[in-house]
Amino acid sequence: MTLDLDLILTLVNPVGAFVFALSGGIVAVRNKMDIFGAVVLAIITAVGGGTIRDIILNQPVFWLSDPLTIWCAIAGGVIAFFLHSLVDALKPIRWADAVGLAIFAIAGAAKTASLGHDPLFVVIMGVLTGTGGGVLRDVVANRDPLLLKEDIYATAALVGAGLYAVLHFSGVPESWAFASGMLVAFVLRGAALIFGWHLPKSQP
Amino acid sequence: MTLDLDLILTLVNPVGAFVFALSGGIVAVRNKMDIFGAVVLAIITAVGGGTIRDIILNQPVFWLSDPLTIWCAIAGGVIAFFLHSLVDALKPIRWADAVGLAIFAIAGAAKTASLGHDPLFVVIMGVLTGTGGGVLRDVVANRDPLLLKEDIYATAALVGAGLYAVLHFSGVPESWAFASGMLVAFVLRGAALIFGWHLPKSQP
Amino acid sequence: MTLDLDLILTLVNPVGAFVFALSGGIVAVRNKMDIFGAVVLAIITAVGGGTIRDIILNQPVFWLSDPLTIWCAIAGGVIAFFLHSLVDALKPIRWADAVGLAIFAIAGAAKTASLGHDPLFVVIMGVLTGTGGGVLRDVVANRDPLLLKEDIYATAALVGAGLYAVLHFSGVPESWAFASGMLVAFVLRGAALIFGWHLPKSQP
Repeated sequence: MTLDLDLILTLVNPVGAFVFALSGGIVAVRNKMDIFGAVVLAIITAVGGGTIRDIILNQPVFWLSDPLTIWCAIAGGVIAFFLHSLVDALKPIRWADAVGLAIFAIAGAAKTASLGHDPLFVVIMGVLTGTGGGVLRDVVANRDPLLLKEDIYATAALVGAGLYAVLHFSGVPESWAFASGMLVAFVLRGAALIFGWHLPKSQP
Repeated sequence: MTLDLDLILTLVNPVGAFVFALSGGIVAVRNKMDIFGAVVLAIITAVGGGTIRDIILNQPVFWLSDPLTIWCAIAGGVIAFFLHSLVDALKPIRWADAVGLAIFAIAGAAKTASLGHDPLFVVIMGVLTGTGGGVLRDVVANRDPLLLKEDIYATAALVGAGLYAVLHFSGVPESWAFASGMLVAFVLRGAALIFGWHLPKSQP
Repeated sequence: MTLDLDLILTLVNPVGAFVFALSGGIVAVRNKMDIFGAVVLAIITAVGGGTIRDIILNQPVFWLSDPLTIWCAIAGGVIAFFLHSLVDALKPIRWADAVGLAIFAIAGAAKTASLGHDPLFVVIMGVLTGTGGGVLRDVVANRDPLLLKEDIYATAALVGAGLYAVLHFSGVPESWAFASGMLVAFVLRGAALIFGWHLPKSQP
């Protein structure tokens, strides 16, 4: 079985973008933005992480050849704007977001590995792809960046991308490395949702 | 009549940069920044949108070959710092800013169209070029991003860039598309200034 | 005596990154971030300025070929997280930070000059390299950007990079220009630390 990375990304990017866009739209509504602000924040959340990754790696920005991903982000922002109380109350959204996180993180790591970069950067770009959009969303909305403070969220991306990197550089078939990393990131994030896990903080 | 996009941009970029820089400098003074902060915020406001556009489109950043635009931004920041109460009180500044918005938005859309991108991205890059500097200014100054919340501002850029895109892809001569988009963006922004129009918000 | 810019940067980048990372980690602890947030903020502070510089100049991002710099940034973040009260109390850190500021600012200016850019951009990129990471740190941590408000900090980078530019474009040997710029930036920052100098503010 071979894994065609480009094909997988073409399929999953729009889905991940839509789910992430919902969270961007909800933050916009909470911050009293208008519908334009909701769409802007939705797009930033959906594609921000992957955009910074591609710029740093000096690759063409992924969504420039993929308008569908941006349309899905716009749709997520509009839906969040008009149906925010419904979307906000939906527990399944958190699980869809966990899927998005896992997919984006490993996809970002795999793209970086395919360019021949150091394992350290494979992991960093995985985390950046999975979480950068959420950090940008909070920065633009003038909120404290929640994912740097709470929950096992970025950590799930880190562990998943780390596992992918270990398997990839061990010569494990790409499809196994990809699937294992994604599964671990998703399970860890899911467990954090169920059990309320978080990382320790320092006492300032 | 032919429209030389490069020539037009060379002429209008410094003017737009100066006007936008004034608003950056005023925000800096309100936030108790020193003169260095005023100049930094002026430059970010003036060229931030176009810089992000060029980086995403993988084009040379426009002001690297055009020091005059940066000098105009610095001048705007210095003037705003020393004459902020005068500048702040000037109603005509709002109208100059509306001209800057219209020019930058359509110029950004036209540059993107000239590179052969999808109409969706032509519109997005137009809005980004017109408004990205203002969002960056508010993010760096740690303010809520006003243009995502209030007034018909980004919307004017959106409608103008949208009209430009429709005309451009319909085969209308470039100069007509450019002028029509700019005029509509300016008139819409001007009407919002006069009548206090704004977009509806969702009830969070 | 010849100055090999690449060699110098390879030697000093990790040191500067480590020192800057400490300040990022301390801000993270103060903002109640977890250890992941501390490492993220440490990396952003350490390499943010140089990363934006390289992206704007369309150069390969410097740390992609230099994992040691990122490891030093991670180490700085982890140390600041676990030993923050110790690190925070250390006066010598401020002096190490002044050395980092001076090195990064002149290194950024020299890299820009070596690419043949206008003197204005040599100075701007010097300031950006020296101070951009600190501004990004404050933006992500949702703080007011202190260096746009207080002390002779960015100004030290500006004067040092300006002196470097004057000497470089006057044909002074590169090693003299580099050393003079660095020394002046460091002395000015040091004097500001000792005497509490700051720039005047406008009365809003």
